[in-house]
Parts: sequence; structure tokens; C-alpha cells
Amino acid sequence: MLENEWQMTKYPFVPGHEVVGKISAVGNQVTNLKRGQTVGLGWFSNSCTHCPQCVAGQNHLCATAEGTIVGRHGGYADYVRCDHRWAFALPEGLDAAKAGPLFCGGITVFAPIVTSDIRPTHRAGVIGIGGLGHMAIAFLKAWGCEVTAFSSTPDKEPEARSMGAHHFVSSRDSGQLAKIANSLDFILCTANVTLDWGAFIGALSPRGRLHIVGAVTDPIPVQVFSLLMGQKSISGSPTGSPSTIAAMLDFAARHKIAPITETFAFSKVNDALDRLRSGKARYRIVLDMAA
Amino acid sequence: MLENEWQMTKYPFVPGHEVVGKISAVGNQVTNLKRGQTVGLGWFSNSCTHCPQCVAGQNHLCATAEGTIVGRHGGYADYVRCDHRWAFALPEGLDAAKAGPLFCGGITVFAPIVTSDIRPTHRAGVIGIGGLGHMAIAFLKAWGCEVTAFSSTPDKEPEARSMGAHHFVSSRDSGQLAKIANSLDFILCTANVTLDWGAFIGALSPRGRLHIVGAVTDPIPVQVFSLLMGQKSISGSPTGSPSTIAAMLDFAARHKIAPITETFAFSKVNDALDRLRSGKARYRIVLDMAA
Repeated sequence: MLENEWQMTKYPFVPGHEVVGKISAVGNQVTNLKRGQTVGLGWFSNSCTHCPQCVAGQNHLCATAEGTIVGRHGGYADYVRCDHRWAFALPEGLDAAKAGPLFCGGITVFAPIVTSDIRPTHRAGVIGIGGLGHMAIAFLKAWGCEVTAFSSTPDKEPEARSMGAHHFVSSRDSGQLAKIANSLDFILCTANVTLDWGAFIGALSPRGRLHIVGAVTDPIPVQVFSLLMGQKSISGSPTGSPSTIAAMLDFAARHKIAPITETFAFSKVNDALDRLRSGKARYRIVLDMAA
Repeated sequence: MLENEWQMTKYPFVPGHEVVGKISAVGNQVTNLKRGQTVGLGWFSNSCTHCPQCVAGQNHLCATAEGTIVGRHGGYADYVRCDHRWAFALPEGLDAAKAGPLFCGGITVFAPIVTSDIRPTHRAGVIGIGGLGHMAIAFLKAWGCEVTAFSSTPDKEPEARSMGAHHFVSSRDSGQLAKIANSLDFILCTANVTLDWGAFIGALSPRGRLHIVGAVTDPIPVQVFSLLMGQKSISGSPTGSPSTIAAMLDFAARHKIAPITETFAFSKVNDALDRLRSGKARYRIVLDMAA
């Protein structure tokens, strides 16, 4: 958003859509939250509440949902405003200093596990071990699945295993991918680069699903026969519904899952952004507004 | 298969994989069927019964499943042989003279309705009104859905409506497709040609699914953002499981759904094939072996 890569940034721009903080004021009709409470806020900050998607509890698919940093100022400001339905109280056991990334990155990888009906008996893969992928591995491990991490960076293998991955496969090695053909029930792609998609579809077991949450820009050339013969599917999703966010927070607290973060004082925000751009951040940077 | 388009035909070739007939003999371990019973047989005639897919009741995804006309002689012969698990007794009320096409074309369009969890409240589209599509429209109508038929042949509109379609849209008119953007929960593609796939994905409502059963040969260029923003999916499947075949037969009998057929005496098989090639067959040709 800072660089206007998605062609929807309005300048002057104030980022921040993974926000944890204390409520400083509530509207006079808010009854579910109160001043002083610690809450989190993610990509969306409002939705219409009356369209078919909102009525079905799928408010993140509301056509007029408002982005926290789309045409308005986000969490890098001293205060950020949202509809009370999009602020989520942190359950006990969740560290407020690390919980921020759950509210966009976390829910983006947690929601597909829920909507794809993934079960603990499934074998799951995660492509990309970064801000989103490292949380996906932790969630799927806690979910009870057998987890394969795919990365183009062999160095990340020990970390991937410490996050909960049972297996590590190079995402650039078609030979290695061919060896695990027809084996994975679910592959969650958090990368936003062009990959050997045919090899990943081939790695799916019959009835398997390749689910993409990375903003891949080049079209994926899907060979229909590869879907048809194994009854496979390809899908995508943006963040998740409010009830899924609440379920994720509860699940993360119970399983002691926290994003792996580095913390910078807010006054060092430019250093933090440089580190982010360098690709060295492990795996999400928290800006501490109080420091 | 006759023309070896799928590169797996062995000559001399005897076609016939939508077969209805009387059992002339059973093996000495068969207890569920008996001589003289009228049964149907489709694409598959055997499966291993012990691989993970077979054990899960997904025998049509068995890696060593045997095709009725792949490397062996099919239903154009006087006799055809299959494992007893792939011969299905016709329920009362199903006309044996028209039931044949259910066993490959029928199950190919019925199975995705079941596996995609389509509900009577859904809005469904069918691309292509031919041997498969006309059965898909009838099934979805009986399922309780609001049905939109897509065809490149405007002449077929009255027939499509008589089959149960509530709406008719040209599959070649991107303008008409844009008008129904975000409206369909499910689109079943029975065509095997290249279409404006982006427009069809756009016609899906949030959480909608484009399911392909047509043997489309050109890769489909999938724009990830179009899946991601609306939480949409693309999938494919080959025929259906034995239990789904049984459910289909029961459903077809209860709802009086029969393929629309033209009948030729088997001695006129070459005339029948000429008519099929002409594209004029409405919609499936039955060869009567007794005539």
C-alpha cells in the first residue's frame, strides 16, 4: 500500500492494518466493547451489515467493506477508528505485543483452513515461509496435520521445522515436487511469485485443493485435465470473516501460537521498513508506539 | 476414443461405455446381482477396492481403475464384462431404453452437484447444452436451484427452458456475462472449448465455484485476484463414485429425469455416428442391440 502496488493508495498515506491497542473511546451505541479494553483491528474496519454476504456472516466479502488503510488513516497514527464489529478483544493468554500480525496475515492463512474443511488427518503444504507462511505452518501443526513446508530458501529448513513442519521441500525443484506427487490434501500458497503450478497441482492427492492467498500477478495456466482426473480444485481468499477471526484468536491462545516478530520503537519506523524491504525480517515487524 | 483423441485407444476398438443390458452370467462369488437382472455400466468397469481412494468409497479416483473401453472391448459387443461393483441395478421407474447415458454423461454432471455441496437455494449455471449439459439442467432444476443455461447456440433457448432452465445467456457474449456478474453460486462447464473464463469467474457470486467436466485442452489462464477477492474456486472431476451413481439413479427415478435420446438400431450404427458427428443429435444417441 505504501508503494501503491495495488493502485488504490491515497496520499498522504498513513499505513497500519495490523493494529493492537487500547480503546480510547466508544460510540454511544456500542455495548460489546468498552474504553480501556485491548483490541485488535485488521484489514477491514467496517462493513454494511445488511448485504447478503454480511447477513451470512461473511462480512469480509461485503462489496462495500471499508479497508482500514484504504482512503483513510491506519494504525501508524495515534488513534485509529473502526466499527465496533471489526475490533476484537484479545483473549487471555495472547500477548498484545505480538498479536498484531494475526489480524491480517494470521487470519488470511487461518480462514482457508476453516473454509476448506481441513481435518487433523490431512496432509497439508505451505508455500512460502514468510510473514504469512510461518503462521500457516504453526496453525496447521496445531490443527493436527502432517505439514510440508515449501520454500525457495534452503536456509529456512531448520526454522520451518522448529515452527512445526514435518517435511521441507524446495519450491523451485520440480524433481523434488514430482517425488511427492499425489500426496497432499491441501496446499496453501502464501508466495506471490510465479511457480511451477503444474507440479504443485500434481503434488495434490485426489480431491486435493491448492489455495492461494498470495497476490500472484501472472495468470496461472491451469491444465483442465490435471484438475479433472484427480477431482482437484484451485481457490483463493482474502482475510476472513469476523467469526473466523474470533475463532482464530481463541485457537491461537489455546495452542500458544504467536507470530514470530521483531520489535522496533515507532521512532525507528524507517529502519523497520528498510529491514522489511531487505527480506531479512523474521517474520513480522512490530512497531511499538509506546517505546 | 474412436478417433484416439485422448491417445489411449487400442485398435481394433469396440466402443460402448454407457451400457444398459441384462446380466448373462455372474461369477461364483457375486451375491449382490443375479442373472437376468437389468443393469447399467459406465466409464469404469473395475477398481482395486483396497487403495485409499477405493477404501474411502472414491473408487472412480482409484489409480488402477479399469476403463470399460480402455484396452478392452465395450458395450458395442454382444457381451461386456465388469466387476460386480460397477454394474448398477436400474431402480423401478427408470426406462432401460433411455438410461444408458446416465452411466457416464449423467454421473459426470450429477457428481459435482453432490461433491460441491450444492443446495436448492443456490443459483446454478450450466455451460453447454449437449449430451452432458441437458442432463445437468434437468438435475439442477429437480435439485431446486435457479438454473441459468449458457450456450453459443441461441436456437437452443426454447429447449433449454423446456429442460428446466430459468434463464438463458449466450456463452459467447461478454456483455451479457458482465450483466450477471457476482450472481451464480455454481457454474458447471460441460463444454470443451476455450471460453471467456474471466467473464465466467466474474459471473460467480462470492464463494462461488466454476466446476469443469468438459475436456478443455487449452490451459485456462486464471487471474489469482479474481479468485482471491471473491473467495472463489475452480475445480474439475471425472465421472463419480459408485455410491453417487446409485444416488443418481434413485434421484433420476424419483424425479422422472431421463436423458433425451434418439434411438437407432445397432445395424445402423454408422448412420448414428454420422449424426453424432454432425452435431444434430438431440442429445444422446441410443443404439438398440435388439432391434
